[in-house]
Amino acid sequence: VQIEIINTGSELMLGRVLNTHQQWLCRQLADLGYTVTRQTAISDEAPQIQNVVREALARADLIVVTGGLGPTSDDRTRELVAELAGAELVCDDEVLRRITEFFTSRKRPMPESTKVQALVPRGAQVLMNAHGTAPGLVMEIPAEKFRPAPTLLVMLPGPPRELRPMFTAQVVPLLQTKLPCESEFVCRTLKTTGLGESRVEEIIAPELKHLTDAGLELGYCARIGEVDVRFVGRGCGAQQNVAEAESIVRRLIGDRVFGVDDEQLETVIVRLLTERKQMLALAESCTGGWIANRITNVPGASAIFWGGAVSYANDAKLKFLGVQEQTLATHGAVSEETAREMAEGARRASGADYAVSVTGIAGPSGGSDGKPVGTVFIGLADGTRSRAYKFLNRYDRETFKYVTSQQALEILRRALVAGTQPALT
Amino acid sequence: VQIEIINTGSELMLGRVLNTHQQWLCRQLADLGYTVTRQTAISDEAPQIQNVVREALARADLIVVTGGLGPTSDDRTRELVAELAGAELVCDDEVLRRITEFFTSRKRPMPESTKVQALVPRGAQVLMNAHGTAPGLVMEIPAEKFRPAPTLLVMLPGPPRELRPMFTAQVVPLLQTKLPCESEFVCRTLKTTGLGESRVEEIIAPELKHLTDAGLELGYCARIGEVDVRFVGRGCGAQQNVAEAESIVRRLIGDRVFGVDDEQLETVIVRLLTERKQMLALAESCTGGWIANRITNVPGASAIFWGGAVSYANDAKLKFLGVQEQTLATHGAVSEETAREMAEGARRASGADYAVSVTGIAGPSGGSDGKPVGTVFIGLADGTRSRAYKFLNRYDRETFKYVTSQQALEILRRALVAGTQPALT
Repeated sequence: VQIEIINTGSELMLGRVLNTHQQWLCRQLADLGYTVTRQTAISDEAPQIQNVVREALARADLIVVTGGLGPTSDDRTRELVAELAGAELVCDDEVLRRITEFFTSRKRPMPESTKVQALVPRGAQVLMNAHGTAPGLVMEIPAEKFRPAPTLLVMLPGPPRELRPMFTAQVVPLLQTKLPCESEFVCRTLKTTGLGESRVEEIIAPELKHLTDAGLELGYCARIGEVDVRFVGRGCGAQQNVAEAESIVRRLIGDRVFGVDDEQLETVIVRLLTERKQMLALAESCTGGWIANRITNVPGASAIFWGGAVSYANDAKLKFLGVQEQTLATHGAVSEETAREMAEGARRASGADYAVSVTGIAGPSGGSDGKPVGTVFIGLADGTRSRAYKFLNRYDRETFKYVTSQQALEILRRALVAGTQPALT
Repeated sequence: VQIEIINTGSELMLGRVLNTHQQWLCRQLADLGYTVTRQTAISDEAPQIQNVVREALARADLIVVTGGLGPTSDDRTRELVAELAGAELVCDDEVLRRITEFFTSRKRPMPESTKVQALVPRGAQVLMNAHGTAPGLVMEIPAEKFRPAPTLLVMLPGPPRELRPMFTAQVVPLLQTKLPCESEFVCRTLKTTGLGESRVEEIIAPELKHLTDAGLELGYCARIGEVDVRFVGRGCGAQQNVAEAESIVRRLIGDRVFGVDDEQLETVIVRLLTERKQMLALAESCTGGWIANRITNVPGASAIFWGGAVSYANDAKLKFLGVQEQTLATHGAVSEETAREMAEGARRASGADYAVSVTGIAGPSGGSDGKPVGTVFIGLADGTRSRAYKFLNRYDRETFKYVTSQQALEILRRALVAGTQPALT
């Protein structure tokens, strides 16, 4: 099955907006066993849209077009695709009724332009929009029109909170009827930390050779402080081959594997603390709430997360965490001593089993010779003692916060897994 | 100038990784006056890569290919593009020396496979990699080989922290020499809140007609609780037309415009507080540090941000913020009263000019009949009084946190701009 995604929007081509549809749609389709073969983004200009859709119609069994179904003058997908397919646009009364109802129920005036969203290419199936006004559209392009086989052409509205539920509730059942997926598909990602990409391959690839020779796909993705190892198996035996590959990699570098698939470090932390019925408190300075934010993104975090202080100013370190003025004066806010007192203070205030603290210089300014921009101390306190770890994270401000939060969570993870404090550099 | 971006990577097509290269490269190019005409993503499979690059070579003046230059077996862009262009791969001694040096300086063993990164298509220009081992490559494909005109083909490594500085430091100067941009280009985005997309168009489009008739591009992008209005002007008079369009829109809906271009609400808040020499403190429950994180993403935030409490557990609300046990018992943690006491407590502890508090039910569990999932109270305290605003944000957990943080920052922005507390629903 050849599948193509086409994302329309001049804002994409001008780099004003991040295209999240590609990943989301590819992921949903992959989990159903379909692999997207090509994704294309183009502007809202008419010739562009028609050219790209025409090319895809010559290749694909399924085309998903996103964007350009709204009410404004730059929303042109509907009319351009209808023209390409030779289908007249007709007003769909049910859609018009729903659009009117949308505005009535919100007590807002209904702009005339919104009515264009009720126009539907003759013969197209309408996907009602539960979260907005623009419906989705499905056209079945017959065989021999653009290529020997027929093509299913799905148009979805651009806003993610309209597109996603529409895809899940309405497009997926349609696909399973119209383009049933016959082959087994298994994808498994092991997330590792602490080894470079080529070193990971050097260790694991020879031991996986019998599986890759037999058709298992093995992929690597280097991220900041992290290497993902990905297995993809298809067809008969896929499940078993992927499971065998995973167990081989775990035997070779298991201590480096911190999670699987979409599992983030924060998910692992919440799981480990939940299993142990333990609580966590945080004391963040330079990460500014990023770690607390990551932890609280995980459903169920309230069972293990007491809370924390974002002690950005020195005064906040004194008032919320009981850091000694003397410590700040002697060693500075960015020091091993302050990091330890912050962690101890958070643990004392909360009574939590663990407290993690972070203090450092995110930059771009604030560095000095002895403590350059990027200097970070991460503290960890448990019931018996505290310790601080020093890092130098020379990145832009947001990457700095991300990398530092990864290090802090990994220190905690290792402490939880080992039951002891980790030796990290 | 026709420009195409090609992103390679099976992880993209399986939806395992978000493609951030598209936006970043499109944005950099747009700011230099170049508009990307097409972006395509494909897997690491050989026929796919060669087909897509071949098609682009028949159309584009400039092609930027990302990914597939690393050391692992799924990195195949180098050899596949060389084969397509009919160029032999030869070892570049300087690149090999740098790769060796990369491992030596880090005291890590150098895996044999990393040497493949020193292979360069004969005649290609090498872009040294300051942050990794894989160099970038530039090939000049002569006229008449794939189309009448020549094509500049740039290959960049996949990791963003290698690609970005390489593009800025090495590709941009090359473009300005090889493909100088002659036409003026101005892009301006006004970020609005509080009106729907079609309502915005209804108000502004008629008044902008003389400019759009004269060639000004006008675009809209609906986001959660936000509509972006985008003007693009090209050629002679672009600057002036865009400025006129902006002043018309500000006259019509200026109170709805909270920022321009990439400006986020947090940037505006930091700017406004810095101008006023005022300080902010936060008391976050359900947003879990997300607002503090947004504020501290802005360089210079330390001048205006005292800090805050992530008072997730009730105990943290008592200890850090001095919320009364009686208030929690009578009204509950998610209530107008608790929100006000949280804001007052944060202001009292910090002595800051403003304190913002948030308490609510992010879900998926924790709701009740009287307080369904999505219920939020946002408190604002200044030197004289406090007030709380109620919202119902029925979204998934992360969207809930985002929307709530937008509302909290917008409440603060309006208070700062008006000098009084806003009347919001």
